[in-house]
Amino acid sequence: MKSEGLPIIISAPSGTGKTTTCKVLKKRMSNLKIATSHTTRKIREGEWDGVDYHFISKEEFESKKNKKEFLEWAQVHTEFYGTSLEAIAKHQQAGFDILLELDVQGVASLRNMDFKGIFILILPPSIEEMGNRLRKRGTETEESIERRLNTGKQEIKSYQKYDYVITNNEVEETVESILAIVRAEKSRVARYVPTSDDIKELLG
Amino acid sequence: MKSEGLPIIISAPSGTGKTTTCKVLKKRMSNLKIATSHTTRKIREGEWDGVDYHFISKEEFESKKNKKEFLEWAQVHTEFYGTSLEAIAKHQQAGFDILLELDVQGVASLRNMDFKGIFILILPPSIEEMGNRLRKRGTETEESIERRLNTGKQEIKSYQKYDYVITNNEVEETVESILAIVRAEKSRVARYVPTSDDIKELLG
Repeated sequence: MKSEGLPIIISAPSGTGKTTTCKVLKKRMSNLKIATSHTTRKIREGEWDGVDYHFISKEEFESKKNKKEFLEWAQVHTEFYGTSLEAIAKHQQAGFDILLELDVQGVASLRNMDFKGIFILILPPSIEEMGNRLRKRGTETEESIERRLNTGKQEIKSYQKYDYVITNNEVEETVESILAIVRAEKSRVARYVPTSDDIKELLG
Repeated sequence: MKSEGLPIIISAPSGTGKTTTCKVLKKRMSNLKIATSHTTRKIREGEWDGVDYHFISKEEFESKKNKKEFLEWAQVHTEFYGTSLEAIAKHQQAGFDILLELDVQGVASLRNMDFKGIFILILPPSIEEMGNRLRKRGTETEESIERRLNTGKQEIKSYQKYDYVITNNEVEETVESILAIVRAEKSRVARYVPTSDDIKELLG
């Protein structure tokens, strides 16, 4: 009577604190797995096939891509990276929750395939604050920051694609809200599993 | 930009631990109010009108009942007790969450009037355990216990009327789940309120 794990999809405009939030979240959730991605790049010393990545050839990657086995994929320089639906399903069936950090495009494609998961959007307290946080990093040109801000605004506008919206005022509070959402979702009536044989029998 | 409070409706078959759960919950939620009921019985020493109850005449009660001002009402011996919709709305508009302990009939009538709230059903780990808990009280005849068990089974069968189902294995855990549900519900996309003027303007 063990229940399935939940895919948790998290998006946030740049400068909202998603990376930090997800880092703290991973520490707090003992039941959380990150889906192992596939890559065409060479294995490095200290890496394990099937643990760090599934290392595959470009031909295999192309074939999986064509068979629509990837939830999402990306090309970085000459190498390919992808998250397979199978990797997610495997963890889920074993009862683990799976964290997926996706952008709005990724979320839109998951919604189109009617993917079952919890969609959470993390937002900055204000657009001004989002700009401040991006500038504080000091790693980008003003032009690049403006581009990120414009993309961020589009992401805020698409908030209705999500199930939950959290304003990130303080990382610990945001993580508490995500933990609450996951806990609450597990108590949703659609996920109720009888906890004894006599209740199971009663509900037929 | 303060958000409205949430009505939290909690039901449970007898012998599930609802009374204890709600007692702990009230201590844990600083933002929680209990709707003040109306009653036709006489005010007692130490009680305050409008605090402990709204003390009204039988004529006034009858009139409110006929005007459908009560969410639910009951007769105990020769006196009447009722929870007015107005009392709930008042707390809600002031930003307080409101706890309503209702039975399945009460829940059904709220659902029929499309009442907006979070409906939570607390269930025992098993029907056997529910019987054990009722017997442990030692205050009732076996016949009365059997009657309660049968009512309880009907309540378990109607679990799909609720939004959330929590199995009460341990009171603290059950309270944590309710707190998580309330927190999560406040982050639902439908309840998102822009937290700054620039986001408000962006979302038009």
